[in-house]
Amino acid sequence: MADPSPALHTDFYEITMAAVYHARGMEGTATFSLFAHELPPTRGFLVVAGLEEALDYLESFSFTPEDIAYLRSLERFSDEFLEYLASLRFSGEVWAVPEGSVLFAEEPILEVTAPIIEAQLVETFLINTVNLHSTLASKAARCVLAAGDKPCVDFSLRRCQGRHAGLAAARAAALVGFMGTSNLAAAKRYRFTPVGTMAHSFVEAFGDETEAFRAFAEMFPDHTVTLVDTYDSLGGLARTVEVARELMARGHQLVGIRLDSGELVEMSRKARQVLDQAGLSQALVVVSGSLDEYRIAELVEAGAAVDLFAVGTKVGSSADAPYLDLAYKLVSYQDRATLKLSHGKQTWVMPKQVWRRLGDDGRIAEDVLGLRGETEIAGRPLLQPVMRRGRRLGPRGDWRQARDRFQQELATLPEPCLRLRQPQPLAVEVSPALRQLQDQTKREALARQAAVA
Amino acid sequence: MADPSPALHTDFYEITMAAVYHARGMEGTATFSLFAHELPPTRGFLVVAGLEEALDYLESFSFTPEDIAYLRSLERFSDEFLEYLASLRFSGEVWAVPEGSVLFAEEPILEVTAPIIEAQLVETFLINTVNLHSTLASKAARCVLAAGDKPCVDFSLRRCQGRHAGLAAARAAALVGFMGTSNLAAAKRYRFTPVGTMAHSFVEAFGDETEAFRAFAEMFPDHTVTLVDTYDSLGGLARTVEVARELMARGHQLVGIRLDSGELVEMSRKARQVLDQAGLSQALVVVSGSLDEYRIAELVEAGAAVDLFAVGTKVGSSADAPYLDLAYKLVSYQDRATLKLSHGKQTWVMPKQVWRRLGDDGRIAEDVLGLRGETEIAGRPLLQPVMRRGRRLGPRGDWRQARDRFQQELATLPEPCLRLRQPQPLAVEVSPALRQLQDQTKREALARQAAVA
Repeated sequence: MADPSPALHTDFYEITMAAVYHARGMEGTATFSLFAHELPPTRGFLVVAGLEEALDYLESFSFTPEDIAYLRSLERFSDEFLEYLASLRFSGEVWAVPEGSVLFAEEPILEVTAPIIEAQLVETFLINTVNLHSTLASKAARCVLAAGDKPCVDFSLRRCQGRHAGLAAARAAALVGFMGTSNLAAAKRYRFTPVGTMAHSFVEAFGDETEAFRAFAEMFPDHTVTLVDTYDSLGGLARTVEVARELMARGHQLVGIRLDSGELVEMSRKARQVLDQAGLSQALVVVSGSLDEYRIAELVEAGAAVDLFAVGTKVGSSADAPYLDLAYKLVSYQDRATLKLSHGKQTWVMPKQVWRRLGDDGRIAEDVLGLRGETEIAGRPLLQPVMRRGRRLGPRGDWRQARDRFQQELATLPEPCLRLRQPQPLAVEVSPALRQLQDQTKREALARQAAVA
Repeated sequence: MADPSPALHTDFYEITMAAVYHARGMEGTATFSLFAHELPPTRGFLVVAGLEEALDYLESFSFTPEDIAYLRSLERFSDEFLEYLASLRFSGEVWAVPEGSVLFAEEPILEVTAPIIEAQLVETFLINTVNLHSTLASKAARCVLAAGDKPCVDFSLRRCQGRHAGLAAARAAALVGFMGTSNLAAAKRYRFTPVGTMAHSFVEAFGDETEAFRAFAEMFPDHTVTLVDTYDSLGGLARTVEVARELMARGHQLVGIRLDSGELVEMSRKARQVLDQAGLSQALVVVSGSLDEYRIAELVEAGAAVDLFAVGTKVGSSADAPYLDLAYKLVSYQDRATLKLSHGKQTWVMPKQVWRRLGDDGRIAEDVLGLRGETEIAGRPLLQPVMRRGRRLGPRGDWRQARDRFQQELATLPEPCLRLRQPQPLAVEVSPALRQLQDQTKREALARQAAVA
């Protein structure tokens, strides 16, 4: 079945609200702010990702004739409104923090300013997209931190939450510095290096492990990584050495071996020893199997002899924090500051900016959240205009640029943000002007409530 | 950008292994078994889902010319192999447990029997699809258990891991008995009832809450659920009553009110009281906001006056267990039993069957895992042939049938499986014949290893 059109990946209430706005002639300009209310307890920072997919969506936003026919079939909407929807495009402005940036709670990731119907209709898709990519990038970044100077590759596709999440996981991983992915669809789309050689089933189908390794090495003499733990890892290593020597005799080199089970610390050191003694010091020791940042750190600390971490399920599903507490909140309508007074989470009013000031050590000293127009706040403004009148202001960003940006930004993170366990994210400062307007807006809203009560 | 073809949503090693099998003329028949090694600690049973999407994939499996061009560009594969891949279709047989069934660890969800290249190439996609749907259905089922006789609806799309996961979440929810979804793409595709009315932003854009409610009620007089907690819930209730009376005067009824924050127990009871006193006893009290099975159970136990639970993020991402420990393992090749001897998780050899026997109380007394051909085992066989020669044996299953099946199967679960906290899944029994063959296969593999060591 064909995938539904992007515009229909939305909550029904976006359409019912739009219908009312339309009937009432509410065409005023609204600004919505997309941000995380708070970070998961195991995250010291967010890695922003998903912006390019979000902008693609906004640039091509439209309901197809099939979408409109479906909406008509619900018998809730007037023909006039449906005709209006059929010709609707996104004509608004977007300010955003570029992909690969690091950010904290309450700091806008992006802000949309548009006629309220347009700004409202895109809510669900924007949250979904930014949530998916930023959740996975923020998780993968922790593996890179744990692995130190050893590279990671992405093996997560099979247990990602769907194919679309698999693509995002591979991209998020590349964005934070992973060296390759097993995911062929992602490798094709984003020009990543595809990685992978053989599974246990391959060895089992041959029955004879040496024959399996030999058959692989003959076909891929420059790309052989043997999986040595199908029967017993020491035996698998011995048979790898045999095949590696045959490769050498033909003028090729074994790329490495992979361990997927067992005592990885001890076995990786043993593998290193066996390979070195056989004159295969160039051969990599790859490990896989339920890896995440905690397990990688454990292996590194215990002195495992690992050259490459193949990271899967737990990172591709961000298992310890599978979503971010992202919201997309109306912060102004027709230049009027808006907020809700409900218990709990508050939203800062009006279009905003975040100014980041680095200390003498090159680390972030302060992030200040203020009104977008403020001019007195020191530091680099993080949000930039990226779309006007529904069109991107620059070329489509590439994941490589985002990766380079992330490397730079990572170097500016204070140590408490970088801790794997009990990290402490930066708490954003709020400018006096924003705080004053927030208080005033709240007072006025309370007074209005008192008046009608 | 167009989505990559389904066949390319795979791990690279599936292709490298296929290339070697092809070069070696390994065309023997393989059987792979897809099952969960173990259940997450917070799951007492699995709800099987994803089979129909898996069968769609197998029926239409093929590499596009663009896929082949991409593979060629990697400069790893021979033209002859690429031509072979270009014409490859799935021609195998599938046995499976139908969607909506309940299952436990080690029990096959599906088994694929096909020439080894075909059976191997489909591994990643099959795991990904069954994992996605079964993870989400198994989570959503717990909400239905917690909610008792009150219905649930799906509000999860915005924080699902991507759009594809959003579709699956809505379908999984419907499959276990949810009454509707906010997800319009899912509602269109699967003919679900779309639900939802207004967000806080709607009330804020109007500024005046009564005006907001009135505008909505005028446009949707038979479908109004007011969101009452934008400013303060009691005030929102009072203004709802005002608008509900106007509706009544026009011959319509308020559908309900929604609470999204605050003390839900107290406020839901207060809301019920206010609505009843105003002669609006038909109006539903809907609650939302970080609901999952634990929170729903808490609300029910505390006597909250809730008529409908709108369940989102935590269920749409299966936050406490965002993946299943699913494997797709080679269990036989050319009628030879295969297994790996690696540490840890074991796989039962050969094509298998599960026989389920109910006790006098109508609950499952025993599940027995045996060899597919065994005839002496009492009980209902759970796996059925669903595909032969690459074609479905029956019509495409509908989610409604799966929902009915789930309702029946739910009634057969023993109490320890149904507990929300510390559930105890059933442990499958293993037939003597299977156990004997397993031991023999292991002994032979060990002997082979000893011989080559």
